[in-house]
Amino acid sequence: MFPFRVINQETTEDLLDMASVIEVVEQAYQMKSAQQATLFPMIFHEFEPGKADMDIKSGHLPQADVFGLKLVSWFGDNDQKGLPQLLGTVMVLDSRTGVPQGILSGEHITCMRTGAAGGIGAKYLARPESEHLLMIGTGHQAPFQIMATLMAIPNIKRVSISNPRSHAKAEKFAAEIKDKLLAKFVSKYKGDEYERYAQKCEVEFVAVDDLEAATGQADVIITATPAREPFIRREWVRPGTHITCIGADMEGKQEIDERLFAVGRVFTDDIGQAVRVGETEIPLKKGLITEADIAAEIGSVISGHAAGRQSAEEITIFDSTGIAIQDLLTAQHILRMAESRGAGAIVDL
Amino acid sequence: MFPFRVINQETTEDLLDMASVIEVVEQAYQMKSAQQATLFPMIFHEFEPGKADMDIKSGHLPQADVFGLKLVSWFGDNDQKGLPQLLGTVMVLDSRTGVPQGILSGEHITCMRTGAAGGIGAKYLARPESEHLLMIGTGHQAPFQIMATLMAIPNIKRVSISNPRSHAKAEKFAAEIKDKLLAKFVSKYKGDEYERYAQKCEVEFVAVDDLEAATGQADVIITATPAREPFIRREWVRPGTHITCIGADMEGKQEIDERLFAVGRVFTDDIGQAVRVGETEIPLKKGLITEADIAAEIGSVISGHAAGRQSAEEITIFDSTGIAIQDLLTAQHILRMAESRGAGAIVDL
Repeated sequence: MFPFRVINQETTEDLLDMASVIEVVEQAYQMKSAQQATLFPMIFHEFEPGKADMDIKSGHLPQADVFGLKLVSWFGDNDQKGLPQLLGTVMVLDSRTGVPQGILSGEHITCMRTGAAGGIGAKYLARPESEHLLMIGTGHQAPFQIMATLMAIPNIKRVSISNPRSHAKAEKFAAEIKDKLLAKFVSKYKGDEYERYAQKCEVEFVAVDDLEAATGQADVIITATPAREPFIRREWVRPGTHITCIGADMEGKQEIDERLFAVGRVFTDDIGQAVRVGETEIPLKKGLITEADIAAEIGSVISGHAAGRQSAEEITIFDSTGIAIQDLLTAQHILRMAESRGAGAIVDL
Repeated sequence: MFPFRVINQETTEDLLDMASVIEVVEQAYQMKSAQQATLFPMIFHEFEPGKADMDIKSGHLPQADVFGLKLVSWFGDNDQKGLPQLLGTVMVLDSRTGVPQGILSGEHITCMRTGAAGGIGAKYLARPESEHLLMIGTGHQAPFQIMATLMAIPNIKRVSISNPRSHAKAEKFAAEIKDKLLAKFVSKYKGDEYERYAQKCEVEFVAVDDLEAATGQADVIITATPAREPFIRREWVRPGTHITCIGADMEGKQEIDERLFAVGRVFTDDIGQAVRVGETEIPLKKGLITEADIAAEIGSVISGHAAGRQSAEEITIFDSTGIAIQDLLTAQHILRMAESRGAGAIVDL
């Protein structure tokens, strides 16, 4: 008999703002890299190969007194049923007593913490004077990546948008993104904060068709696609570029030329997971790098225990695979806000 | 945005009755043994060795269109905080769409499905004319085992109660158990059903101190203790006895003489789990049996695909380790009852 809070997607959208999620995810990364977090083994099950699957990612953050899990399912046929293909729930428990705290709709949490990861990668690894972001991928995740990067890097003046499979989609995305960012992320701020973040959206958004040229001009590149073949060649990338790879989250996925790993300094959110299912998997399997060549986990860079970028010429890579403790700490943040604002439903469990 | 039902412990107590849970658990066992169920790998984490841990057991029952998980935590210090040491929650999702259906308090579900397991073991493996049940262990689980067995075996006339560590506890338990059974399990039935189940409690309950003598007189023995050393010797057990072992659920736990496995026919709920953490673990590790000596999973016996007891002289053993699909199917049963009766809280997730 415990009070148990249930938070639906709308409430997660109301309560979360990107600046806070960037802070929360930075804390989660630091706890992870300070050995103050445990990721439990991931469970993955295919209901029907290529058509429906689910995974359960779970973990414990003793510094935050929280443990729990995120269950995500993907049912490819759901759109024919008027349902989202991806569904997620996050369950949060108190790690001092085992008492369940709440359950939250997981879709928006996932989008926000994944966007925050991209912003954090750019903040700690890109050249601070970076002006030009190249966003590759125009799916659901792209606006989150762009907003987080605009918040994390003050000098961005231009955002190039590429969709390697459809330039038309890139053009549509570029035409609409500014209004989307304002509506989705900025409209929730008030007064000075509103002005500050609205100002960050005053950059040039342009669709690009020539990926080689766009890559050669970019300071920061973010890839967020479901690709299984690399679309960025090593030769296209100029010195000093930072690349964050978001797409690869299972074996066989790859977005960038594996030879970039041999010339760049590589950072991950979780070395074990990056090696198994991240962008790091293929360069490692092909023998271009070994696990020892991974410079550090991003949490060690944030906390100052490992060096991030060491020169203006270096190519840096952040392989962000997504870890349960990002979701757990973000979910705990939402529960605390919900408590102070009386949001969500409280039921007896 | 889905309607999501939250069921607290009190409601699980209101809605579940043992006869129905026995049916539901028989179905779960049959699905398992017909390869129509998948158990996902168990996650186990110790927060503090010997003081606090948790596990996540999950699985999928395609025939029932359900998947999900049970998360159970144990915090040894919780009683000092006025909280239960064991806490559990069961989460149920639709395996055709991934849509979350509900979350349920897991303690009573666990007790009921574990009790049902004992009843099912006796129903399919004990001699049908069995009259004498020996219940070893007087903890929280014992009443559930006794009630399920009284329901499953019509001829029981005597229930001997043993607590190998405290005869005083066995005496107290024997003095109180009839009233407890009536209050806890029978009072929820009405009319003829009430009479039928109340009648089943009209047996002799007697505390026994001489475990050797009691073992030698029993037709059915159920062990539900946290023992790590066997308390029943092979020589004490007479031909024709059925033994259900409930206690062993992790490496190193053992309740009965491992030599019984060499002379008895052994059944389990899940061969893989029994071999790793069940009563079967130690006889197997000591080389007294091999995995091939396990006669069958109980589900195959229920469905008629494997032979149960083959003679009146045979000693049969049911190693019940507890599997997530028992919880999932019981939880789905509760959700359906709750829907038809308007029980529990419906919230938007």
